[in-house]
Amino acid sequence: MNNPCDLSFERIVPVPAAHLWRGWTDPEVLVKWFTPAPWVTTEAEVDARPGGIFRTVMRGPNGEGNEGTGCVLEAVPNRRFAWTGALAPGFRPQPAPEGGFLFSAVIDLDEQAAGTRYRATVLHVTEADARRHAEMGFEAGWGAALDQLVALYRG
Amino acid sequence: MNNPCDLSFERIVPVPAAHLWRGWTDPEVLVKWFTPAPWVTTEAEVDARPGGIFRTVMRGPNGEGNEGTGCVLEAVPNRRFAWTGALAPGFRPQPAPEGGFLFSAVIDLDEQAAGTRYRATVLHVTEADARRHAEMGFEAGWGAALDQLVALYRG
Repeated sequence: MNNPCDLSFERIVPVPAAHLWRGWTDPEVLVKWFTPAPWVTTEAEVDARPGGIFRTVMRGPNGEGNEGTGCVLEAVPNRRFAWTGALAPGFRPQPAPEGGFLFSAVIDLDEQAAGTRYRATVLHVTEADARRHAEMGFEAGWGAALDQLVALYRG
Repeated sequence: MNNPCDLSFERIVPVPAAHLWRGWTDPEVLVKWFTPAPWVTTEAEVDARPGGIFRTVMRGPNGEGNEGTGCVLEAVPNRRFAWTGALAPGFRPQPAPEGGFLFSAVIDLDEQAAGTRYRATVLHVTEADARRHAEMGFEAGWGAALDQLVALYRG
């Protein structure tokens, strides 16, 4: 399970799976938590079915930013949401962004008595890509974003 | 619908959708029709669920051959089967094969009174890739393979 081309993290968070599901699949909610401050997500488009669009536009505090359009792979309400940058909507293969790398993200939700087990697995083509993503702050970044999502529902 | 990066063909064939579905998803049937003679498919592995393996090994009459491992994207019994070479099983992105190109294939089945409407759509990254695939004999090849599949059930 510990493929060196993967990054993953797992946490139990004190909100129902339905809220986490909505955070990932409702673009109006997604823009509120998806990027750790001071970055912001300025636009999002999500069509939560296989082949649907997953698009985000992010901006940094100095006006820098990036935009990505990928494809939804699996959408099982309150259980699993998966998307990839390796495909455009409708399953068309697409190359890596200029200077970037491809990855797929799989979010598994498992509601339990104590809260929801949230597991994010991010799959890369190579170990070098995974290392680069780790050095960009994957775990802290995705963790801080998840905190923002949980805070939306915990007030 | 006529994206120049796509190739597609559509036919009405005189067999039930369930037989075409089985032809694509049961490896023991797939090896019997998948490559137009004199090529043969010597091995196949198909796990017909999102993230599952789609792997084939093909051999030509002079011993040449190729092997491809892709990922199932959609599997709706008797309706739709889609897979891609842009992802490995489990949704991991993967590069194009050496000297080759990536594509995704979407097979749509629609059973009607006169037979089953069979539509294959093959999506490429670029128009050049689609042209190359067309020049390799896409339509004749996929058509001859489909004839072999139909013949399995028509005797």
